[in-house]
Amino acid sequence: MTNHDRFLSRAAERMQQSAIRKMGSVLASGRDIISFAPGYPAPDTFAWRDFQAIATDLLAAQDGGVLQYGPTRGYRPLLDVILGIQQARGIPAAFEDLLVTTGSQQGLDLVARVLIDPGDVILVELPTYVGAITAFRNVQSAMVGVAQEEDGIDLAALDTTWERLHAEGRRVKFLYVVPNFQNPTGLLIGLDKRRRLLEWAERRDVLIVEDDPYRELFFEDSASEADVRPIKADDRNGRVVYLSSFSKTLAPGYRVAWISAPPSLASKFEMAKQAEDLLTGSLDQRIIYEACRRGILDRQLPVLRKYYAHKRDVMEHALRRELGDLVRWPNPKGGFFLWLTLPGGLDADRMIDRAIEHGVIYVAGEAFYVNGEGKNTMRLCFSAPTPERIQAGVSRLAQTIRAETEAAAPADASAARGAS
Amino acid sequence: MTNHDRFLSRAAERMQQSAIRKMGSVLASGRDIISFAPGYPAPDTFAWRDFQAIATDLLAAQDGGVLQYGPTRGYRPLLDVILGIQQARGIPAAFEDLLVTTGSQQGLDLVARVLIDPGDVILVELPTYVGAITAFRNVQSAMVGVAQEEDGIDLAALDTTWERLHAEGRRVKFLYVVPNFQNPTGLLIGLDKRRRLLEWAERRDVLIVEDDPYRELFFEDSASEADVRPIKADDRNGRVVYLSSFSKTLAPGYRVAWISAPPSLASKFEMAKQAEDLLTGSLDQRIIYEACRRGILDRQLPVLRKYYAHKRDVMEHALRRELGDLVRWPNPKGGFFLWLTLPGGLDADRMIDRAIEHGVIYVAGEAFYVNGEGKNTMRLCFSAPTPERIQAGVSRLAQTIRAETEAAAPADASAARGAS
Repeated sequence: MTNHDRFLSRAAERMQQSAIRKMGSVLASGRDIISFAPGYPAPDTFAWRDFQAIATDLLAAQDGGVLQYGPTRGYRPLLDVILGIQQARGIPAAFEDLLVTTGSQQGLDLVARVLIDPGDVILVELPTYVGAITAFRNVQSAMVGVAQEEDGIDLAALDTTWERLHAEGRRVKFLYVVPNFQNPTGLLIGLDKRRRLLEWAERRDVLIVEDDPYRELFFEDSASEADVRPIKADDRNGRVVYLSSFSKTLAPGYRVAWISAPPSLASKFEMAKQAEDLLTGSLDQRIIYEACRRGILDRQLPVLRKYYAHKRDVMEHALRRELGDLVRWPNPKGGFFLWLTLPGGLDADRMIDRAIEHGVIYVAGEAFYVNGEGKNTMRLCFSAPTPERIQAGVSRLAQTIRAETEAAAPADASAARGAS
Repeated sequence: MTNHDRFLSRAAERMQQSAIRKMGSVLASGRDIISFAPGYPAPDTFAWRDFQAIATDLLAAQDGGVLQYGPTRGYRPLLDVILGIQQARGIPAAFEDLLVTTGSQQGLDLVARVLIDPGDVILVELPTYVGAITAFRNVQSAMVGVAQEEDGIDLAALDTTWERLHAEGRRVKFLYVVPNFQNPTGLLIGLDKRRRLLEWAERRDVLIVEDDPYRELFFEDSASEADVRPIKADDRNGRVVYLSSFSKTLAPGYRVAWISAPPSLASKFEMAKQAEDLLTGSLDQRIIYEACRRGILDRQLPVLRKYYAHKRDVMEHALRRELGDLVRWPNPKGGFFLWLTLPGGLDADRMIDRAIEHGVIYVAGEAFYVNGEGKNTMRLCFSAPTPERIQAGVSRLAQTIRAETEAAAPADASAARGAS
């Protein structure tokens, strides 16, 4: 048999399985496991009947373009719809700025390929979205993390980090941020901080890659449309590459998202996409377009906000009841995620086998850190399980954490004794 | 405004617009132009009614998985179907070998990223598929071309090229071939030559990337199932990465294709795909699976063979009648393409404006050559236009070529005078 290691690229040698995607095999095992792991939207919210009507209409019309190759930029009427969505978000955009992508994951990958050479420095939040880490690692970037505060990225730490790198002779190409209900922390960057981020990017000559899949899912008791204004909305000089998606609002299985960027970058993203997959699925693009044109997206959004806010309530309530004395988390004002910090001695990754025994899984927080921190953190996703399963899952998680705490305590004590 | 050139990666600096995809804008201009340019399947062959029934059933069932995220490897029942297809082609494969890709273009891109470092040498046919050139160029490979004979790649030239590179201290990572009805030449590699190619790859320690989208479309008057046996079918030592697709047989708008590779490479392709787009469209995969399960693919294949063979006949007949004295081409025994060689002095790329004036377009052959050759060649795609449009298009092409020949002749004569 051929030894294939000798044929791998340097990038491939370093590629790793994603911590989240590995969870799939645990779930596929068929045991009764309550999953807070993958960030899936709830399928019972999908507009099944509308999608069925749309697909039937599209395929009955036998318009060749519905199943044919098409332009790499995207289906033109869908691009027009996206222009309208951007305008509603305060982002003045032109057709030349836009590119439909095969999910926002492709958007991140295109950004990585067009902007990063091996060794280039990019800044990310601590913690940050693991799919971005994967895309940026695959082009051999050097990722440097910046701490977050309650209202998002720490601006002082950001500039200190930039200055340190600058003094070392290293240039920062871009800062990657998820300003609205960040994956994994659920944090929301404050409005004033957004403006100052943009000023900072201008001053330090850095681009901002703004990843915004969750902005429509603000919870009306704690955030409003005004709070989720994109950084891109105030971008007058082409500093910001903006990514958003229909995956969390209509359905992820269609793989339809977009990039909005200065035209000179957008055309490079288009060329990179030509080589990656030629075009995003034609039927998928038409279905998304029709769902927007027929008002289904607009009808869904207020429903989804209430729906996910309720699940957030259920999870927070269960956590306070079961674990209020042991763990802490920032209140999620939107999105899918709750970020749990465990007592200092615990290691969420090492605890996973015990959690599976108790019938619950999560994603250990370490995977979201580019600097090895976060061992006592975990991401809980409240979007997919039913309220009953959320409550039961939190109970199982509480049993796991209490068992782990008790198992850890004597060890700590004996370690302390050993040291004395 | 920010100058973005300073932010581009070295790969992005070299990215170019694909010659074929640019044609889209000409076609979108709305003029009556007969297009032999893009390699589109004919939409009137698509199984519209069956697809409609399948989509309706899938969306009515409200099975969450139809519109949800799913495993990067692909929808398991679809992978089982692909295993069956591979077995029918003589390729023994296991589940661990397979990965569903977002079109074969993604397969090529994954191959490029997992196997190629900047400067690595890969061998390609002269001419070869332009989408592969784009994917391999985007990872900054050094592509070296090998001439083709009537029965495909020239084995003597192949080994001479390898020896020359070896003497220069350069290692060849893989050979990229399209053995069945190659895009762009329509050539078919002979069976004996396939076996010798595999032996050569073993002897020279080179991988083979076998791209096989057209194999089901053999024309029964000139080729048989036996003639299209994949090189991969005889691969005992994991030398061959095999790519195939549903785009030419069911529809390209679904973006569903696959890679079959030794497991150690397949797992790297999976990791690269996780970063590229997480998964291939869920609804698309389900529709393709159902189309196979319900026997629609099997029913389509003999129909498609006859349908495209007829179009090939119409084009060859028209070419013989209109241009038989001026041009030559190898008889396409399958697939979508006819490869035309013009009189020596003509330049197909420079002739394009004149062709558009005459109301016909094609792809100038130079785009398929990695060494700048092929100026007097062009690719004609007979799959999409109706037989009437093929005849009319060849007439327009004949007018174009005759006008160009006449315009070129005095210039040649004066050039000859000038030299005397």
